[in-house]
Amino acid sequence: MLLGEGQTPLVRSRSIGALLGVDNLYFKLENLNPTGSYKDRFAAVLVSEMNAKGQKVCIATSSGNTGAALSAYCAAAGITCILVVVDGAPLPKIRQMQLYGAQIFMVHGFGKDPGVTATVFNELEKLCAANDLPLPISAYRYCPSAMQGVQTLASEILETLAGQVDHIFAPAGGGGLTLAVTNGVLTEQPDGGRTRVNCVQPEGNDTIASALRTNEPRARAVAQSTTTVSGLQVPGVIDGDRVLENCRKTGGTGYVVTDERVFFWQQALARQEGIFSEPAGAVALAGLEDAIRRKEVSRSETVVCLVTGSGFKDMASVETNFGLPAVQTVEATRTIGLIQPYL
Amino acid sequence: MLLGEGQTPLVRSRSIGALLGVDNLYFKLENLNPTGSYKDRFAAVLVSEMNAKGQKVCIATSSGNTGAALSAYCAAAGITCILVVVDGAPLPKIRQMQLYGAQIFMVHGFGKDPGVTATVFNELEKLCAANDLPLPISAYRYCPSAMQGVQTLASEILETLAGQVDHIFAPAGGGGLTLAVTNGVLTEQPDGGRTRVNCVQPEGNDTIASALRTNEPRARAVAQSTTTVSGLQVPGVIDGDRVLENCRKTGGTGYVVTDERVFFWQQALARQEGIFSEPAGAVALAGLEDAIRRKEVSRSETVVCLVTGSGFKDMASVETNFGLPAVQTVEATRTIGLIQPYL
Repeated sequence: MLLGEGQTPLVRSRSIGALLGVDNLYFKLENLNPTGSYKDRFAAVLVSEMNAKGQKVCIATSSGNTGAALSAYCAAAGITCILVVVDGAPLPKIRQMQLYGAQIFMVHGFGKDPGVTATVFNELEKLCAANDLPLPISAYRYCPSAMQGVQTLASEILETLAGQVDHIFAPAGGGGLTLAVTNGVLTEQPDGGRTRVNCVQPEGNDTIASALRTNEPRARAVAQSTTTVSGLQVPGVIDGDRVLENCRKTGGTGYVVTDERVFFWQQALARQEGIFSEPAGAVALAGLEDAIRRKEVSRSETVVCLVTGSGFKDMASVETNFGLPAVQTVEATRTIGLIQPYL
Repeated sequence: MLLGEGQTPLVRSRSIGALLGVDNLYFKLENLNPTGSYKDRFAAVLVSEMNAKGQKVCIATSSGNTGAALSAYCAAAGITCILVVVDGAPLPKIRQMQLYGAQIFMVHGFGKDPGVTATVFNELEKLCAANDLPLPISAYRYCPSAMQGVQTLASEILETLAGQVDHIFAPAGGGGLTLAVTNGVLTEQPDGGRTRVNCVQPEGNDTIASALRTNEPRARAVAQSTTTVSGLQVPGVIDGDRVLENCRKTGGTGYVVTDERVFFWQQALARQEGIFSEPAGAVALAGLEDAIRRKEVSRSETVVCLVTGSGFKDMASVETNFGLPAVQTVEATRTIGLIQPYL
């Protein structure tokens, strides 16, 4: 433990489980990691490795959870963190990274124009290679050893609910998280076993989930990711092929969900369970809803949904997606009268 | 554990301790509680008590951490949460409470006009008493049993660093947190002992700290709190007298700090340690700085500073206090050239 990452709470559902018809539903609260997402487990290992090698500069491309995590761990390690962020990245996320001391470069068209995005990425890859630096991306394809830090998430679940877990639902963009969870599960049960790992994706970024369900041999890139769920907009395959292979080994399958259901469950997590999740953190639960509808999860099974990041990370989605009432200022004399009807 | 509160990480300083000249400095990361502050420990007990009594409505006055905590725990317990918030309370905090399902009433002049504030408070006290409901305020004076949930914070520190803790530094507004910490410490060492609990306040809300230092018998209300550190603007005495008594029993004293040093240490926590704290969460560290300057803490002593809440809670202070650079958009062709100087 470097900054307090990992060993996150695994809490039992208080009402959503009953609502969905599952007796034993648990949430793994990765939103309570130090910078607010499971990426801290990745950054902790990556920055430790850099530290061990005496590397003093970390260059990465992220405007989201990976960037915040890298900024924090680099700050603690005394490593300069340089983040190339997408055009239009939200200011609050950038402010968090800057407060940790990261240098931010927002590149015109990056993340919007495929040509620009590819060019910047290739140039950075070359630059890092030339300087013997990692280019930290939270995927096995790029940073396999640091991703082992994420596998601990699965070990913690299996240890806490020893021998009881039937299903883990994990959200996927490029698939790194899901792959990490399968690796953790397959370490415990190499030839398959009780725990199935299911991969859930928003329909606007269905690179893995449908392929998994329909037994296709390969994940499939999409031309453009159209989901509005931030953090899961990864049109390339990245870890997808290995996710297919590993999820199948565990007996798991894929679920595709609409952004609308994701936002519905994000709100339900807050209202019913007191869990303040970012949209991506509600994707697993949306997948569980679909699984129950398809009768692929039964009432007596024990299910864990991963809540991957904090609601604080994406306050913009709170403002736009939930139609929360405007705050009206009332006169003091009216206060008690307004409260009375609730009693 | 209801929503994953408590058992927060206690991490060792990586550079601020060395900078200040303390070999063994630790931070207790209360910012990693479910809603982002130590108030979750209070809300967990308070809402459990309400649940046990079958109470279905929770009425409180908070626009800050207590309100967020109550909203979340009420949501999980199926209790309606009604929050009367101060005039001008920041929208992001209100949005978090609303997402948990809380009903928000912002009252004109509440928290600004002393007359209005007193009236609203008295009316709510009467309303709650008439309906046999608690009026949840995180202070022993009002909610002693729920405050016992906060004492666990001290037990955790003393258990993790068994027999080693010389000093705990705690920030104080009305003093509830500091009193809880002293209660926890005095439970372990009833007749005094190794661990001294020190109370730190911003100079604009010095109700307890100077009185503690100068051996005055009573805490002193201030006409108006002038600190800009949100959460510590509590001009009344509340738990102050008992804080004086208990801190003295532990051998601790008081420290008064400027808002400027608080913001300095808030930034240092992020930059040097990777800890994203709200301003109030850096007050303890500012107090330690003063203690070292006064030679009241020596190099070999073991010190714990409480980081009480998350930086996400007060992004406005990040924007206004740190002069973070504007984000400039650069052309893709310039990106590598801009990074090169860092290598």
